Amino acid sequence: MTHTERRQRLRRLFAGSQCLIPASVYDPISARIAESAGFEAALFSGSAASAVTLAAPDINLLTLSELAAQAARISRASTLSLVIDADHGYGNALNAMRTVQELEWAGAALISLEDTVIPVPYGRALTDVDLISQEEMAGKLRAALSAREDPALMIAGRLSGLAVEGLERTVARARAYAATGVEAIFLLKPTGLAQIQAVHEASGLPLIVALAPPAISRTDMARFGVRVASQGHQPLAASIKALQETYAALARGATAEELKGSIASHDDMRKVMRSEEYRKWHAEFMGGKQPPNI
Amino acid sequence: MTHTERRQRLRRLFAGSQCLIPASVYDPISARIAESAGFEAALFSGSAASAVTLAAPDINLLTLSELAAQAARISRASTLSLVIDADHGYGNALNAMRTVQELEWAGAALISLEDTVIPVPYGRALTDVDLISQEEMAGKLRAALSAREDPALMIAGRLSGLAVEGLERTVARARAYAATGVEAIFLLKPTGLAQIQAVHEASGLPLIVALAPPAISRTDMARFGVRVASQGHQPLAASIKALQETYAALARGATAEELKGSIASHDDMRKVMRSEEYRKWHAEFMGGKQPPNI
Amino acid sequence: MTHTERRQRLRRLFAGSQCLIPASVYDPISARIAESAGFEAALFSGSAASAVTLAAPDINLLTLSELAAQAARISRASTLSLVIDADHGYGNALNAMRTVQELEWAGAALISLEDTVIPVPYGRALTDVDLISQEEMAGKLRAALSAREDPALMIAGRLSGLAVEGLERTVARARAYAATGVEAIFLLKPTGLAQIQAVHEASGLPLIVALAPPAISRTDMARFGVRVASQGHQPLAASIKALQETYAALARGATAEELKGSIASHDDMRKVMRSEEYRKWHAEFMGGKQPPNI
Amino acid sequence: MTHTERRQRLRRLFAGSQCLIPASVYDPISARIAESAGFEAALFSGSAASAVTLAAPDINLLTLSELAAQAARISRASTLSLVIDADHGYGNALNAMRTVQELEWAGAALISLEDTVIPVPYGRALTDVDLISQEEMAGKLRAALSAREDPALMIAGRLSGLAVEGLERTVARARAYAATGVEAIFLLKPTGLAQIQAVHEASGLPLIVALAPPAISRTDMARFGVRVASQGHQPLAASIKALQETYAALARGATAEELKGSIASHDDMRKVMRSEEYRKWHAEFMGGKQPPNI
Repeated sequence: MTHTERRQRLRRLFAGSQCLIPASVYDPISARIAESAGFEAALFSGSAASAVTLAAPDINLLTLSELAAQAARISRASTLSLVIDADHGYGNALNAMRTVQELEWAGAALISLEDTVIPVPYGRALTDVDLISQEEMAGKLRAALSAREDPALMIAGRLSGLAVEGLERTVARARAYAATGVEAIFLLKPTGLAQIQAVHEASGLPLIVALAPPAISRTDMARFGVRVASQGHQPLAASIKALQETYAALARGATAEELKGSIASHDDMRKVMRSEEYRKWHAEFMGGKQPPNI
Repeated sequence: MTHTERRQRLRRLFAGSQCLIPASVYDPISARIAESAGFEAALFSGSAASAVTLAAPDINLLTLSELAAQAARISRASTLSLVIDADHGYGNALNAMRTVQELEWAGAALISLEDTVIPVPYGRALTDVDLISQEEMAGKLRAALSAREDPALMIAGRLSGLAVEGLERTVARARAYAATGVEAIFLLKPTGLAQIQAVHEASGLPLIVALAPPAISRTDMARFGVRVASQGHQPLAASIKALQETYAALARGATAEELKGSIASHDDMRKVMRSEEYRKWHAEFMGGKQPPNI
Repeated sequence: MTHTERRQRLRRLFAGSQCLIPASVYDPISARIAESAGFEAALFSGSAASAVTLAAPDINLLTLSELAAQAARISRASTLSLVIDADHGYGNALNAMRTVQELEWAGAALISLEDTVIPVPYGRALTDVDLISQEEMAGKLRAALSAREDPALMIAGRLSGLAVEGLERTVARARAYAATGVEAIFLLKPTGLAQIQAVHEASGLPLIVALAPPAISRTDMARFGVRVASQGHQPLAASIKALQETYAALARGATAEELKGSIASHDDMRKVMRSEEYRKWHAEFMGGKQPPNI
Repeated sequence: MTHTERRQRLRRLFAGSQCLIPASVYDPISARIAESAGFEAALFSGSAASAVTLAAPDINLLTLSELAAQAARISRASTLSLVIDADHGYGNALNAMRTVQELEWAGAALISLEDTVIPVPYGRALTDVDLISQEEMAGKLRAALSAREDPALMIAGRLSGLAVEGLERTVARARAYAATGVEAIFLLKPTGLAQIQAVHEASGLPLIVALAPPAISRTDMARFGVRVASQGHQPLAASIKALQETYAALARGATAEELKGSIASHDDMRKVMRSEEYRKWHAEFMGGKQPPNI
């Protein structure tokens, strides 16, 4: 499936009436497994990228090059329609243009840029959230849109300031971001359905929502334009738990035999690595000998 | 811990009398967790590198650049002494020189090169094992040694042909490889202790062994010079099992709440990402505000 | 200009009746200048890639990752239709599939794969040319074609064995390569027009020719299907001569003033770096202040 | 020559009494030629890195990953002691720590960080220079020093605000930066010797100076602690002029023969690519056949 086709599939999801839970993916293997589980769309966030590339917290230590390279690896290994949360676009509006160009080449279906000051400024706490002005963000989004080459690629503006600026200012931003021509709004941490509704109505755009309270049903979110609702990065955290248990067992002297029940089988590994496909290519292009297995 | 110090630590292990099970690692997170579990030495194999980078089987599709970049990410995230199984050195003897140079910069403590024809030649099955001549392999090892810059870095020659050439030829190779000046021999799939003993005595070198029958005890292996005994890549397979279960649950509609028991806690995630360390650096270098958490 | 449009432009050139001299390019700056000089198509060869990335001779030390990354940098900096001489596809037929995938993403308009054994085998001289069998090469080309995603991308088979196998065998290979579905043949070092004619007629395909004797006119080559005729890598060699003279002068104590006549002017530098374009973007997206210059 | 030895050589230059003109280098080939011309130290600047990687002006579009990768390629191709002008450290103090780590691995002998706000903030012109506070810069330099692993590596603080803040504030900054423990000060665009003297005396540190008026003699600079005086990037500009002339000639139909006088000879190319060295390695490690040439 070409990158354009993956983008068109995501556009169809956004044009529909359902609210989708995307797979949170972070590397080729997670993407491969998510796709096998039936997911069509996935979220690749800056926090997951930082974790898997640097084993560092989400404080903007990752470079755009690292994000784009990992996105390309994920795109290569799967056909998921990839929603990339590209932080603040890695600098000012001109950097945001590079961000769009790099992530478009890496196969992104949707790129979201947020309105926070990143990395955290001197004298502020790591958890402080400062916002750039509405005008600056609008310029950034216009820059991002101008840098897009494939018209099927979607650009979203992310509202990260609900908790610090309140609903009124956030709605004004939603309206201003929508006016730039972006095709979706990413709303972080709404605390109630009314906020979702207000942002949707002000922007007239489909929404991506992250970290909404579990009490808000997907049906309700769908009614107010939410098409993608992220509920966190459980797969990475599940992998980490499995690794903690496995290394601890091995450190205690557990044998391969003892661990058999808690690890993927040889057949499962072959399926994840698409060994059968490589076996067919080998048979077809390498002189016809059928290898039994790889 | 500098790269040289990590190499010196591995040398002490090789100079000792114990047989160590190394942690099998494949990315920064796995390395971080392995280190926390108490491992000092780790194995990073071409097969794991191929899996995590390409989600592809171990058929030499990975490039040296990809292997080295992932090794560097692992080295940056941990202080493990890293044993890198660098396949055939990514080409001929001159390529093997580049392999050593790239992996040395990436922080390898030991680099192992094997004596197989890679990638599989035309007309052969994917599972066929063909060996390069003893002379060619000796040339490759001499080239590798000449490319090493830090004298603390160890180079090992890997014997991959026991099953196809038999013990006598394998022992002759062990002797020839040792004569090049390599400081360890990597023996693949010995079927009995006598083979290990023969290779150890012929080479006079410490051994790395992979895929030995579980019936051979580590104590026995240690007696015949085995210093590192790999028993496979359980951590990666455990991570894959966890991902399969998690994506399947999410695809069935499981909520974040329902998955809580099977994923790492927020505190565990913070520990793996070394958030506390970043928090301290932030407090020290960014104007003194103490962030509560990241 | 999208990658697909660049490919379509090259296809029009191949469908025409002219023989084109491509610009030999090797990095973003050379590509930018070649484009400004009026070139529409460019050749990026493995030898130039090795030189600019490693400062090493063309003996296959470069990795596919390095070639693809440099090709992407060139594509990003210009809209040239890029003919990439991708050596042997960096391994066997399955590696050739990855080569096509990587270079397609990097923006290649045409990818050529050659029929030589690379890197040079043990026991052979660096200048020896050994060929893989016709069957193996045909398998490789079929594999390459199957890995192509954008149908506008062209794949060529390169005949490198004229000097070692003679015309008859080379013509048979041309026929066999054409039968795989490749859309061009790359003929290395023809010594006369009759060879070009024979390969063109046997394959029925447009030709790329490198290192033809200067006595053969482009008009004559065009008559026998040659659409692209490389005459070497003068730009890189010109750059090297300029660097040698400049560093030598600086080492002798030459001042900036004394070197003024032999270096590009500030205005020329701004033109190559497209400073005016960035200035406009800045004015448009960064709050309206008109910077005088960058 | 190891990275540490290259650093120690630079330290000896800084401990001496001479003012050195460094070679301005930007890629492996330029570094190779500079080294052949007799240079021992070289300057690799963000502007040159941006030009060669992106063909873009020096407006902080380059990522740290790209800078570090190009620095590593330069280090691999030469033994120059590399002074890297690493802009603002690619973010805040925590990003500066990564910058030091990445560039140390890439072989830097000295890393300089500057006190400007980069990239240019919204609402400002591309040519405006804004400075971070003295306290913030001191924090950044302390962070950089804490991230250094090899004690032989030097860190410098760059004063970029002489023109906007005046001498008094600049001298105060010099004193504050020196108090962090950095071992050199980089002074941009001094307009007279008195400024150099004032900064040297306030900091008590050796100086790197760029863009000083040609009227100030190196002898005078040396007297006031200047150890490295950059006079610009003539080699890159010379290469660009040569490329412009060569592509223009080729576009007009010039033949390879006609260009012979203006390009490096085959022998010169072989020297730059160190072909003879590879030929020796081939003879030594690949079975003994002496290739005539590569």
